[in-house]
Amino acid sequence: MPTLLLDKEKCLRNIERMAQKATSNQLSFRPHFKTHQSAEIGSWFREFGVSKICVSSFRMARYFADAGWKDILVAFPFNPHDLPQLNELSANTSISILLDNTDTLAFLDKLKHPIEFYIDIDTGYGRTGIKSGNKEEIEKLLASSGKIPGLEFKGFYCHAGHSYKASANSEKEQIHRRATGELMNLKQEFASYSPVVLYGDTPNCSTQDEFPGIDEITPGNFVFYDLTQILLGSCCPKQVAVALACTVTGRYPDRKQLVIHGGGIHFSKESAQVADLTVFGQVVDGTEEGWCFPGEKVFLTGLSQEHGLMENAGVLFEKTRIGNKLYILPVHSCMTANLMKEYQTIRGNVIKTINSY
Amino acid sequence: MPTLLLDKEKCLRNIERMAQKATSNQLSFRPHFKTHQSAEIGSWFREFGVSKICVSSFRMARYFADAGWKDILVAFPFNPHDLPQLNELSANTSISILLDNTDTLAFLDKLKHPIEFYIDIDTGYGRTGIKSGNKEEIEKLLASSGKIPGLEFKGFYCHAGHSYKASANSEKEQIHRRATGELMNLKQEFASYSPVVLYGDTPNCSTQDEFPGIDEITPGNFVFYDLTQILLGSCCPKQVAVALACTVTGRYPDRKQLVIHGGGIHFSKESAQVADLTVFGQVVDGTEEGWCFPGEKVFLTGLSQEHGLMENAGVLFEKTRIGNKLYILPVHSCMTANLMKEYQTIRGNVIKTINSY
Repeated sequence: MPTLLLDKEKCLRNIERMAQKATSNQLSFRPHFKTHQSAEIGSWFREFGVSKICVSSFRMARYFADAGWKDILVAFPFNPHDLPQLNELSANTSISILLDNTDTLAFLDKLKHPIEFYIDIDTGYGRTGIKSGNKEEIEKLLASSGKIPGLEFKGFYCHAGHSYKASANSEKEQIHRRATGELMNLKQEFASYSPVVLYGDTPNCSTQDEFPGIDEITPGNFVFYDLTQILLGSCCPKQVAVALACTVTGRYPDRKQLVIHGGGIHFSKESAQVADLTVFGQVVDGTEEGWCFPGEKVFLTGLSQEHGLMENAGVLFEKTRIGNKLYILPVHSCMTANLMKEYQTIRGNVIKTINSY
Repeated sequence: MPTLLLDKEKCLRNIERMAQKATSNQLSFRPHFKTHQSAEIGSWFREFGVSKICVSSFRMARYFADAGWKDILVAFPFNPHDLPQLNELSANTSISILLDNTDTLAFLDKLKHPIEFYIDIDTGYGRTGIKSGNKEEIEKLLASSGKIPGLEFKGFYCHAGHSYKASANSEKEQIHRRATGELMNLKQEFASYSPVVLYGDTPNCSTQDEFPGIDEITPGNFVFYDLTQILLGSCCPKQVAVALACTVTGRYPDRKQLVIHGGGIHFSKESAQVADLTVFGQVVDGTEEGWCFPGEKVFLTGLSQEHGLMENAGVLFEKTRIGNKLYILPVHSCMTANLMKEYQTIRGNVIKTINSY
């Protein structure tokens, strides 16, 4: 079985850096815990002053509430079937939700405890949310929600996930400026409600330095980063805090191909594009203190359910033998952590998650 | 949370059909259980005369041995770090392994119980295995393995996975003919060892009718099939036995887009190509008896960690409301079943897997 290695020092520095960025910009910090899904890793945030979090499901909200978190935003447009969980959890925990339409309100007429909600705003990503320019729709939602006992408008939430599609820095800046500008407009337009503005995915929060009009940032992936974030320029390679350790089980000289026990049920099938190559991870050199970056770049170029393939592995091929362990940075650490279900620190400590047995 | 629905009747018919195909071709049937990973579903195979299975890891071997299976092939080139598990399991269960190189033999010198092995043969897929034409390498492995006490050569194993890349029927036939032809050559060349020949992925076993020289077939995915297999022509849409039931949480008229609670941690990020469209699932109509196929084809066109997106959802968009459940066929049922961790039959019974809590 592959092992998901966690470099705790890198992880702590990632948290510290983002917490400092929030502080220096006078922003509140509400990290998204969907990336690590671990009560223990969550607890590391407390020493950096974090007291409120985002999660992406009520299952996660339950798990982190049990771990002592008292202020949890379920940052996913409310799923009507989650009303029982909402009522149960909100008895002892401050649970807030996202809304982006009036239809969902029909399911919220039996709230047992007061609930704050944020309006999900779309500044161009096109996944969920009311379009930032659609003030009529926002007004309609505010008016209708006002009739629901116990439901209180708290502010605006925006995940500008199109930052993941931007290649040039200028494009990233443009996305960020447009998003923050439009949120600022909403803040002014709806000033009578004193809305709190939540914003911030990992690329934007990592690369941008000014957050006009924003009150609270909500990145998640930065806790580990990954190959996608390296390629986006959100982090340098040394900041990536997780790597999969996989055993080499095959070595095929005719095509300089290595095969590892580590496949789609460990890495996930999420891929990244490196020039013309579709890749599923990047090989690093294991060291006693964790891992470092070899001169030669070798990528995981194929994945089956349990197999991983590295074609044309060059120098790595020559020096690697069957039975060796290879360390590989995942393309998307959130997906990999979800599949792997637990971490092992460089020092050998096992860290459990919501998915651990 | 999405639910992974299982149509037990379809599943039983899929098993029956493949068992009959094996019988009518005088083939032994050793299904691969990596697809369903469930002791209960595994037990359904017994009434069709199945007594031996493939799995893809020692973790699965342990699970199915505990469920009473006595003849298990770990159909993954032996991982040297699995020696303790091999020795433990082989005390009470007939465990066979795959080998494709002599280097791995160095790790097999401390076998506690007799182990049979198959030589993994590559007939063009290029993932693992000794190339079918490389008789020298096969002879070398046979000679070296003969010196390992307790290790016995049983036959050849071939996963002709390049069948998944074939588009035209003629191409599929060509792959199948070449693979079976080359295996037949090996069988004759090494006749003095009386090798048993194992072969058969789901596309080949579903579409081909003649298996000259093959002794045993080992398909796995056929138990459920999926969108990939529909697109490959391995099955008709009505044979797919699993669908994810997901709640609609968003409805965006400007782009006729529906959003469901169901993302990469439920479906997996594996995609399929439908003309120019990259898709992650296909919507079907839920009925009391399961699901059926609507006139209009709507595909899942985007996935985040917990979100699924259907753009340009046409008639489906018009008739669907927030809170409705949509049924969606997965692209790759093996990956989806692994993530979902349990099934719910149409009649509402929960079926556990190796990953259930």
